[in-house]
Amino acid sequence: MLRRFLPCMEWLSSYDKHVLTSDAVAAVIVTIMLIPQSLAYALLAGLPAEVGLYASILPLLAYAIFGTSRTLAVGPVAVVSLMTAAAIGNLNLGSTSEYLAAAIVLAFVSGLILIAMGIFRLGIFANFLSHPVISGFITASGLIIAASQLKHILGVQASGHNLYELLLELGHEIAHTNMPTLVIGVSALAFLVWVRKQLKPQLIKLGMAPRPADLVAKAGPVLAVVATTLATYALGLDQQGVKIVGEVPSGLPSLVVPAFDLPMWKELFVSALLISIVGFVESVSVAQTLAAKRRQRITPNQELIGLGASNVASAVSGGFPVTGGFSRSVVNFDAGAETPAAGVFTAVGIALATLFLTPLIHFLPKATLAATIIVAVLSLVDTKSIVETWRYSRSDFVSMAATIIITLLFGVELGIVAGVGLSLLLFLHRTSSPHSAIVGRVPGKEHFRNIERFAVEIDREILTLRVDESLYFANARYLEDRVHDLISQHRQVKHFILMCPAVNLIDASALESLEAINLRLKDSGVCFHFSEIKGPVMDRLKHTHLMHDLTGQVFLSQYDAWRTLHGEGPGEISTPK
Amino acid sequence: MLRRFLPCMEWLSSYDKHVLTSDAVAAVIVTIMLIPQSLAYALLAGLPAEVGLYASILPLLAYAIFGTSRTLAVGPVAVVSLMTAAAIGNLNLGSTSEYLAAAIVLAFVSGLILIAMGIFRLGIFANFLSHPVISGFITASGLIIAASQLKHILGVQASGHNLYELLLELGHEIAHTNMPTLVIGVSALAFLVWVRKQLKPQLIKLGMAPRPADLVAKAGPVLAVVATTLATYALGLDQQGVKIVGEVPSGLPSLVVPAFDLPMWKELFVSALLISIVGFVESVSVAQTLAAKRRQRITPNQELIGLGASNVASAVSGGFPVTGGFSRSVVNFDAGAETPAAGVFTAVGIALATLFLTPLIHFLPKATLAATIIVAVLSLVDTKSIVETWRYSRSDFVSMAATIIITLLFGVELGIVAGVGLSLLLFLHRTSSPHSAIVGRVPGKEHFRNIERFAVEIDREILTLRVDESLYFANARYLEDRVHDLISQHRQVKHFILMCPAVNLIDASALESLEAINLRLKDSGVCFHFSEIKGPVMDRLKHTHLMHDLTGQVFLSQYDAWRTLHGEGPGEISTPK
Repeated sequence: MLRRFLPCMEWLSSYDKHVLTSDAVAAVIVTIMLIPQSLAYALLAGLPAEVGLYASILPLLAYAIFGTSRTLAVGPVAVVSLMTAAAIGNLNLGSTSEYLAAAIVLAFVSGLILIAMGIFRLGIFANFLSHPVISGFITASGLIIAASQLKHILGVQASGHNLYELLLELGHEIAHTNMPTLVIGVSALAFLVWVRKQLKPQLIKLGMAPRPADLVAKAGPVLAVVATTLATYALGLDQQGVKIVGEVPSGLPSLVVPAFDLPMWKELFVSALLISIVGFVESVSVAQTLAAKRRQRITPNQELIGLGASNVASAVSGGFPVTGGFSRSVVNFDAGAETPAAGVFTAVGIALATLFLTPLIHFLPKATLAATIIVAVLSLVDTKSIVETWRYSRSDFVSMAATIIITLLFGVELGIVAGVGLSLLLFLHRTSSPHSAIVGRVPGKEHFRNIERFAVEIDREILTLRVDESLYFANARYLEDRVHDLISQHRQVKHFILMCPAVNLIDASALESLEAINLRLKDSGVCFHFSEIKGPVMDRLKHTHLMHDLTGQVFLSQYDAWRTLHGEGPGEISTPK
Repeated sequence: MLRRFLPCMEWLSSYDKHVLTSDAVAAVIVTIMLIPQSLAYALLAGLPAEVGLYASILPLLAYAIFGTSRTLAVGPVAVVSLMTAAAIGNLNLGSTSEYLAAAIVLAFVSGLILIAMGIFRLGIFANFLSHPVISGFITASGLIIAASQLKHILGVQASGHNLYELLLELGHEIAHTNMPTLVIGVSALAFLVWVRKQLKPQLIKLGMAPRPADLVAKAGPVLAVVATTLATYALGLDQQGVKIVGEVPSGLPSLVVPAFDLPMWKELFVSALLISIVGFVESVSVAQTLAAKRRQRITPNQELIGLGASNVASAVSGGFPVTGGFSRSVVNFDAGAETPAAGVFTAVGIALATLFLTPLIHFLPKATLAATIIVAVLSLVDTKSIVETWRYSRSDFVSMAATIIITLLFGVELGIVAGVGLSLLLFLHRTSSPHSAIVGRVPGKEHFRNIERFAVEIDREILTLRVDESLYFANARYLEDRVHDLISQHRQVKHFILMCPAVNLIDASALESLEAINLRLKDSGVCFHFSEIKGPVMDRLKHTHLMHDLTGQVFLSQYDAWRTLHGEGPGEISTPK
């Protein structure tokens, strides 16, 4: 019982010096990677840079206690930071302190939602975010984030929560570009792209083993941070208009109680729900991928509690919404982390950074952070997946394209809601006409096949419709129409058989439709029979009016039905289309 | 082509004297029934009584031209009138003329929505109203309508759009009951209940044939109208506080152009959409039932256009939303109507009534109309269906109960929206774990069965999971979890086979999950195979990454898979649970 709620019990019991060494090494590497990322994502969310560090301490401890993934690295991530900016932007707040208070409430409410979903085992509802919707959403978010960072590269003012607003404002402001900022921004961008594409192969060429080479390459952003900070300090670029991070308060975050401001909670509720679900879906898929590599397993409902606890921890330590991040988790895994203790050590690393390193980042240019964000998020833009979805399924492509377009034009919240709504409607539409076929007997055999594809025996007085899917409210009325049409086209028919070999469920709406079909067939003088109903489905049907009023019989097999209604002799042979 | 858009062409071409006589007789009976109903439903919608008559002239002509049912009788109906009252009540309008203008806009917008749905062939979306939701909604609406009419029976003032508000106000007002009104109301109620239950058997006992006896009984309300009107006039009861219909303008309705007031259109849009869908669902099910009795057929998408045209016609002639009514259509059918010309004749009858009969209904007590409504709507309350749904399916019962409770407590609009939302969520939840089973080979045969139910041959290095449903976004992640769990539990497994005999669809999300499964199995050193994929599903899969990267093979049959991976020899025998 205790183990179920505190998954850390499991790995703590067998923790030893060997594992500790692996975890500590991984933690050092992740800490180095996480410092610039945390600062950058806080700025993306519209918050002071140090808030990013705060959101990378307690949340990691909370996840280590309640999470089930051994290697997931929790903290601020790009898409969730963008959603945070959009959610709080809606509130039109004046001051930074109000803005921060709202971010704290958002993290807190989002944490409570995640914990509640975990307790009520609602992880399954995250499935209603279909892959094309989430993939389209992330692609569009990546583009919006990249566009939102261009202002820092150019050194101008601009704001907006969708691509249209952002590009419009940048267009107006481009004339005011600050040259020193542009030089720093473009150099950092070029350097980071080079690090991403070239550094690893170069290091390998120089004789380094692939794995350390990969890890060094991942630490590239730190080099950019150090170099541009030193340059700005040495050349006094901040005096020439280069925006810098500036004064960052030293010391650990102080604990806060999130403001219990009911109207704000209500206003942020939907945003918090969307952030929770998007964050959970992303995090779980990373965690699952990593767990599979070591044949470990995660528990999605307990993951909800782990991520919920992280967000609550983030809120009470003055942070903003967090979730499991893809790139940092992979780094953690590759660097050899074996247990969530690596997360605890990372938290200690970040805490040390907030204590001792903040004076050093005073001169860090915002353009450098913008460059790290742009390089990181452009990998989120997944054009390959768009092309593949188009090739594979037009219906899925429509959901994806609608999600991308609405997100780009109207922002993240409307984008994700419209995408989910549309994918549900398209799915229901797709299943609203169940696969079905009129069947006849394969001559001399006990099998029955589609009369449109095979030359089979038929009897003009008997019509058999085989349905290949469960019957439920979205397709029940289609079945009514179909039977209605068939009977008005085949006026000699005296027996209608519904063959149900693949029907796993008949819901109350479908039952009602079957009753209507029975009554209408009775009015038309046709007997209504069933064949091959599965056991559990029949158990439910047994005591219904349908079975009581049925004008025909229920046959165990279609062959029984044929023998009883047609007799042993051969039937007429159909001509397939 | 023309026939498709003007279904009347079909019956007009063979119209003759014989059919004309049948239609005319039916029209007389329906007209007599429709006059008090139209007046009553207009009052229920909060409109002047004559508006009910206006909504029963042009809409009938429009339906006769564009509708596909031979016998559907269109006009004001109880549930749609209640929804109209609720929709316009939300606007908080001051005067009756503003209220009427809003009702006209509502009918117009609703007509345009229906026509648009018909043109885009969206009739299928009406299926997303599951039977338990619509049935619960109508039951709750019937109770609200009955409660809303009690004030007329008591002769007091009260208002409200849900049961709670209505009963609360009635409780306050009951002390002010007007005795003469109560006497008229209760007598009319008692008489109408007697007519409904007893008149037909009595007439049959007196030697009348069952069918005319039934029709005379259906005309009972007219007798109540005549008797109470005469009594009120003769005894001067209107001077003693009995509320009467009063001055009703004589003459045909004048044509109006619906106000093009964009903010009002926007405010009424959602209400109009709900009215359209509820009205359409009700109307189509009546039309289908009646068509089936004569082996005729209706076209749901053309029905949308027919009902849409009726609502537009209602709007331009100063009426309110209409749809096909159950009881009047049955009367029309039973009275022998053969074509929609019966509707045209009924329209003429109602037009004559507005020209000549309106002075006669001056003294008609509102209590009598309230009594007709109460008796009519109590038959909508379907307790049997509630009990049956409870017995048949708990999940459907939850949707139904939620719809009833939310409708009663919060009104019709929230009720229907919550019901539809909940039924969708419950359905997705129900399908979010696809039926699946681990299977083994029936010894010596080519069949494979569930290892939990049968003693079958298995091989510890081969695991076969049979899925019995289509794979799509709501259940794809469950499959990932399931496979993940299975592989972490069976550490000796080297081959995993997914057997897909009942998979009709693999959407892009499921494809993504299968790719993830393939990669994870590869990381775990397990080969991933498929067997028994259906032809159309395989056609789509052929050119995907999944097939390109698949670590295993695709086998036509599960037996092929077994023979290839296990060999010809016997396997270990499983112990079923």
